[in-house]
Amino acid sequence: MIVDVSKKIMIVGLGLLGGSYARALKRFDFQISTIEKDQSSIDYALKEGIIDKGSTELDADIIGQADIVIFALYPHVFVEWIETNQKLLKSGALITDVTGVKRSIVYKIQGMLREDVEFVAAHPMAGREVSGVENSTDKMFVGANYIVTPTDKNTPEAVKTCMELGRLLGFSNVTTLSPEEHDDMIGFLSQLTHCIAITLMTCNDRENMEKFTGDSFRDLTRIARINDLMWSELFMENKDALLRQMNLFADKFNELKVMLEKDDVDGMRKMMRHSTERRALFDKK
Amino acid sequence: MIVDVSKKIMIVGLGLLGGSYARALKRFDFQISTIEKDQSSIDYALKEGIIDKGSTELDADIIGQADIVIFALYPHVFVEWIETNQKLLKSGALITDVTGVKRSIVYKIQGMLREDVEFVAAHPMAGREVSGVENSTDKMFVGANYIVTPTDKNTPEAVKTCMELGRLLGFSNVTTLSPEEHDDMIGFLSQLTHCIAITLMTCNDRENMEKFTGDSFRDLTRIARINDLMWSELFMENKDALLRQMNLFADKFNELKVMLEKDDVDGMRKMMRHSTERRALFDKK
Repeated sequence: MIVDVSKKIMIVGLGLLGGSYARALKRFDFQISTIEKDQSSIDYALKEGIIDKGSTELDADIIGQADIVIFALYPHVFVEWIETNQKLLKSGALITDVTGVKRSIVYKIQGMLREDVEFVAAHPMAGREVSGVENSTDKMFVGANYIVTPTDKNTPEAVKTCMELGRLLGFSNVTTLSPEEHDDMIGFLSQLTHCIAITLMTCNDRENMEKFTGDSFRDLTRIARINDLMWSELFMENKDALLRQMNLFADKFNELKVMLEKDDVDGMRKMMRHSTERRALFDKK
Repeated sequence: MIVDVSKKIMIVGLGLLGGSYARALKRFDFQISTIEKDQSSIDYALKEGIIDKGSTELDADIIGQADIVIFALYPHVFVEWIETNQKLLKSGALITDVTGVKRSIVYKIQGMLREDVEFVAAHPMAGREVSGVENSTDKMFVGANYIVTPTDKNTPEAVKTCMELGRLLGFSNVTTLSPEEHDDMIGFLSQLTHCIAITLMTCNDRENMEKFTGDSFRDLTRIARINDLMWSELFMENKDALLRQMNLFADKFNELKVMLEKDDVDGMRKMMRHSTERRALFDKK
């Protein structure tokens, strides 16, 4: 194991994801502390034994001792935290994050960070339709992807450590992408899918449809239950890439509509066969 | 029970759905026969004990004895079957179907049907991404909807029998809609969702995306594995209603795109809250 269990880990923001990180890492008996604005979340985590200590304040003692710091905050809150409080971090600390967009975060943080602290960005591709540390579970990491997005400011050792952290958390696939590749990919696989789900959920307000629905509509709208504050921020932070993906989708959807209008059955069937073939790639292995 | 177990049931077309019907009804010990073009499907069903007899031919004996006939065929094959073979049906027989579109089928069949045979149309809203009697199961009816679409040509008794059949099959919700309401609803809940899934699956052919995908993309594309022959026919048979729903979706999707382009965070958040609120209605009870 690259990451020594004597390393002290601090999690800033103990919600669903931060709490699940604590739960997964505590299996290895790491010392885990937290800075979290809500005292009841800290109390819950202490009671569950998934952290050792926590504070709602900027406890200099807690922050100054942490070897690895995981930020599980909204993008702009993370940036503000670093701006204001990086002076409290331990010299030599490695910091990482869980943010769903990368370009707008990584370069900003790395550009302002102290020379003796290193930031390796990561995106754990896992979530649930509920929030809060009370719903935390390490099960959601099983079968899921953990993407590290190194830049030329990062050292190979720190990147290795961050990838090892992903494996310790229980992620099935740990890979790297550039921040640019990440944002393009995520614009398609995650952000576009949320755009589609909320559009489908709101484009027809006819009553009583829930009485007649099958599983396909439920599947396509599972993620239509969405945290508006977080997702609007993620969309804005990846605006150009997301708009590109939205245009690809809208153009293709229009092609299908035109084929239907023109009774082009062969064209529709060809598209369906392409779809069927391509979907096979995405089955869980 | 309205449907007497002494009634003889014939299933025309023993695929996934026809086979699952046989399996579910055999629990009550109905006598079940089948007309099915593939001998190996008949052999399988006989071996499984879910039918009593079957033929790949138009066996006048089998057809002439059936009190209840269930057509589990493609829409145009169903219409052709009635045109050509309705003379073989027993006087007083009740016939029903599983077709996913209703207006184009119900009036055509009822318009040409013998006076002494009654057709009550039904749509079992259940399916799987696999086909064939070998994959049949009655589990897919649990929690699912069965929609009967009566017209003024139907007798109350026959409608009652058809609804009872839905309950015997194990459907959790058995309801009625007019053929027009049905096609409008299904255009939205089922056909539009399939249009979206195949569009998402084919609009971006970038390689290796399966290595980075999360569950949301998988959920939205589960139904992108699609039977091109059947679905292109269903789309064509419900063209006007589906185009209406596609336009509703495309317009709303464009609204979201414009909000993102214009940095209208408040507008996006409002749409997301509307989506979240509305999605709660669709949770499985």
